[in-house]
Amino acid sequence: MSSVVVMGEKAKKVSYSLAKLSTIEKNEALIKASNAILDNKEEIIKANEIDLKEAREKGIKGALLDRLALNEDRINSMAEGLKDIALLDDPIGEVISMKKRANGLVIGQKRVPLGVIGIIYEARPNVTVDGFGLCLKTGNAVILKGGKEAINSNRAIISIIQKAIEECGISKDAVQLIEDTSRESTIELMKLNKYLDVLIPRGGAGLIKSVVENSTVPVIETGAGNCHIYVDNDADIDMAVSIVTNAKTTRPGVCNSAEKLLIHKDIVEKAIKPIYESLKEKNVEVRGDEIVRKLVPEILQATEEDWKEEYLDYIIAVKTVNSIDEAIEHINEYSTKHSEAIITNNYFNSQRFLDEVDSAAVYVNASTRFTDGSEFGFGAEIGISTQKLHARGPMGLKELTSTKYIIYGNGQSRN
Amino acid sequence: MSSVVVMGEKAKKVSYSLAKLSTIEKNEALIKASNAILDNKEEIIKANEIDLKEAREKGIKGALLDRLALNEDRINSMAEGLKDIALLDDPIGEVISMKKRANGLVIGQKRVPLGVIGIIYEARPNVTVDGFGLCLKTGNAVILKGGKEAINSNRAIISIIQKAIEECGISKDAVQLIEDTSRESTIELMKLNKYLDVLIPRGGAGLIKSVVENSTVPVIETGAGNCHIYVDNDADIDMAVSIVTNAKTTRPGVCNSAEKLLIHKDIVEKAIKPIYESLKEKNVEVRGDEIVRKLVPEILQATEEDWKEEYLDYIIAVKTVNSIDEAIEHINEYSTKHSEAIITNNYFNSQRFLDEVDSAAVYVNASTRFTDGSEFGFGAEIGISTQKLHARGPMGLKELTSTKYIIYGNGQSRN
Repeated sequence: MSSVVVMGEKAKKVSYSLAKLSTIEKNEALIKASNAILDNKEEIIKANEIDLKEAREKGIKGALLDRLALNEDRINSMAEGLKDIALLDDPIGEVISMKKRANGLVIGQKRVPLGVIGIIYEARPNVTVDGFGLCLKTGNAVILKGGKEAINSNRAIISIIQKAIEECGISKDAVQLIEDTSRESTIELMKLNKYLDVLIPRGGAGLIKSVVENSTVPVIETGAGNCHIYVDNDADIDMAVSIVTNAKTTRPGVCNSAEKLLIHKDIVEKAIKPIYESLKEKNVEVRGDEIVRKLVPEILQATEEDWKEEYLDYIIAVKTVNSIDEAIEHINEYSTKHSEAIITNNYFNSQRFLDEVDSAAVYVNASTRFTDGSEFGFGAEIGISTQKLHARGPMGLKELTSTKYIIYGNGQSRN
Repeated sequence: MSSVVVMGEKAKKVSYSLAKLSTIEKNEALIKASNAILDNKEEIIKANEIDLKEAREKGIKGALLDRLALNEDRINSMAEGLKDIALLDDPIGEVISMKKRANGLVIGQKRVPLGVIGIIYEARPNVTVDGFGLCLKTGNAVILKGGKEAINSNRAIISIIQKAIEECGISKDAVQLIEDTSRESTIELMKLNKYLDVLIPRGGAGLIKSVVENSTVPVIETGAGNCHIYVDNDADIDMAVSIVTNAKTTRPGVCNSAEKLLIHKDIVEKAIKPIYESLKEKNVEVRGDEIVRKLVPEILQATEEDWKEEYLDYIIAVKTVNSIDEAIEHINEYSTKHSEAIITNNYFNSQRFLDEVDSAAVYVNASTRFTDGSEFGFGAEIGISTQKLHARGPMGLKELTSTKYIIYGNGQSRN
């Protein structure tokens, strides 16, 4: 048996005892692991330095290298994250509904762990800690496959966490790291239907696409964000300027940032200049159609490709639309179905936008940047689902659970 | 473009208008389709006769032929089913939760259609009608791929339904049948991620396995049932006899029938004889381990294979266990995680069984045969999910929906 299969078997076995842990036991383990990370910062930093050195030698730089890098502050914040998870309500065991049928059967639906979760991610050691914390709190076993560039950091972190939870009487099989950094082990994980209940890819579009295409285990697709803001003909222009600027420029590298701007033809003349000025001040490159380019000649020419692209950068593309219908149609055609917003004072248009835009989060008069577990009040987030099955939008602890029916009888047979 | 891709494109397009239909409009179309089926019984029966003739020529017989066959009664009951669906509450548009955040944003979670559903099934024309009705009621477009043996029946049914809904102003693209009966068209459907939101296989284990292994579209796995009944040491033997007999013999061909019986060693001597006698009276073949065979020599030898198999027949296998722990462990190892029951008078054992058995429906002192949408009060059922993602247990209308977040702001930007 391959080591991945052995890990699957161990994870399935331990999942039954994790499901039985009390909230107090889980919280104690989270706090213990948090403190162990703080107590062993140097060891983690040393391991991370090996990863960073090798990454630099391979020519990795910029954002990728930055995401891989750990320092004292970042380790403190990872450890803090585990304590935050300990403070959250435990969703396991909640009975969502219970009712008595005519024949006297009492049928309840109870929240239970998913069982065994696989997480495939890139070279971001913070996901290692996060994934462990969210899965343990929800009574799930987890198998982690992180980016190969972070293997030394991940190995150090997991060994510290495993030791800590073992001291709390929890088997180290609760959180396992696939140390084999080959692509083969990833493929094995994606076919591990016998032991794995769900697979969550966390990372860029390429990683997610590969998991969706190759996994036979059920996948929760976390998503890319080609997010739109539509400025309706009846919009407050100051509000439009402020929301567009916020949604584009506060963190252009994240998935809830605005990438496209649609403006109703009746307001474009008044709206485009102040919006352009505000974006320019933040060094945003603005691309647009002929209409906006006539109004603001500095705007660059947008192409068909622009409507599809998620820039994750200081770039935005602007399109003039003839009606709210055209805006909704354009969004449903080009959006990645993450987050979209309308800026309007019109009641009927606000309702139509909320009803007809087919995205995970649809806003009226607010920035798309709010699509986030913490902003939604979930406390923690495992990702933002852009699929419609199981979970849609920011996923908190509840989204890492399943349910089961529990039925109380007193001898009933079916006719 | 292949015809399946064209169908996907049409289905996605129509799905946006289906999502906007009012409950009244959907119910009118369901009733119209129901009446159209009643008015065109002869046409359906004629088409079905062609299918039956060809099936007989291919040597198809028994249960398979019976499932394919339509007669007046069966057509009446299919039509009745659509009227029943019209009577059910419409889940679409329900706001599940809504709350105000500290910054004034009001965040709600609203039930919406999944979008486009694919159903792959065997030669059972009733699934064609059912699939249409459940999907239309939930505002979903549906693409049906039925077993090739039923193609003439399905074609007749779909053309009647399409005409009926068109008379109600609903595009016939709302329900499309893949008429190309080749395996290639099934594979295309399983890779139609661009247009399909979910794929539901309905049929035997082989069909389901093939869809799970080959689909890149998210799948809801509906399930096989290797269901267990555990007779605890502290059980009422009369109740055990009655429930085991009910669960095994009322419809042995369905997935919620009991296939395995576990008996605690301290009660096996008293329990096995009356259980065996009752099952024998219904012509059930009983297989068992050495202990029960010593007590009832007519019981046949069970092998390791027996613990895994779903007989779907008048066969049951009996195993003696030393403890409730062994019973739970055996079930979690061999069960298909569909439905399991404990017969006990003991409070703690009932709770442990409910907590620790990892199946979609877990019963105390009742027959596993109750795992069914209508018995659970859902009115209709698209299948019974044995996976943990999205839906678990009987799936009603609610399980054919997703949610989206709707956010009401008044100019909020994120810090």
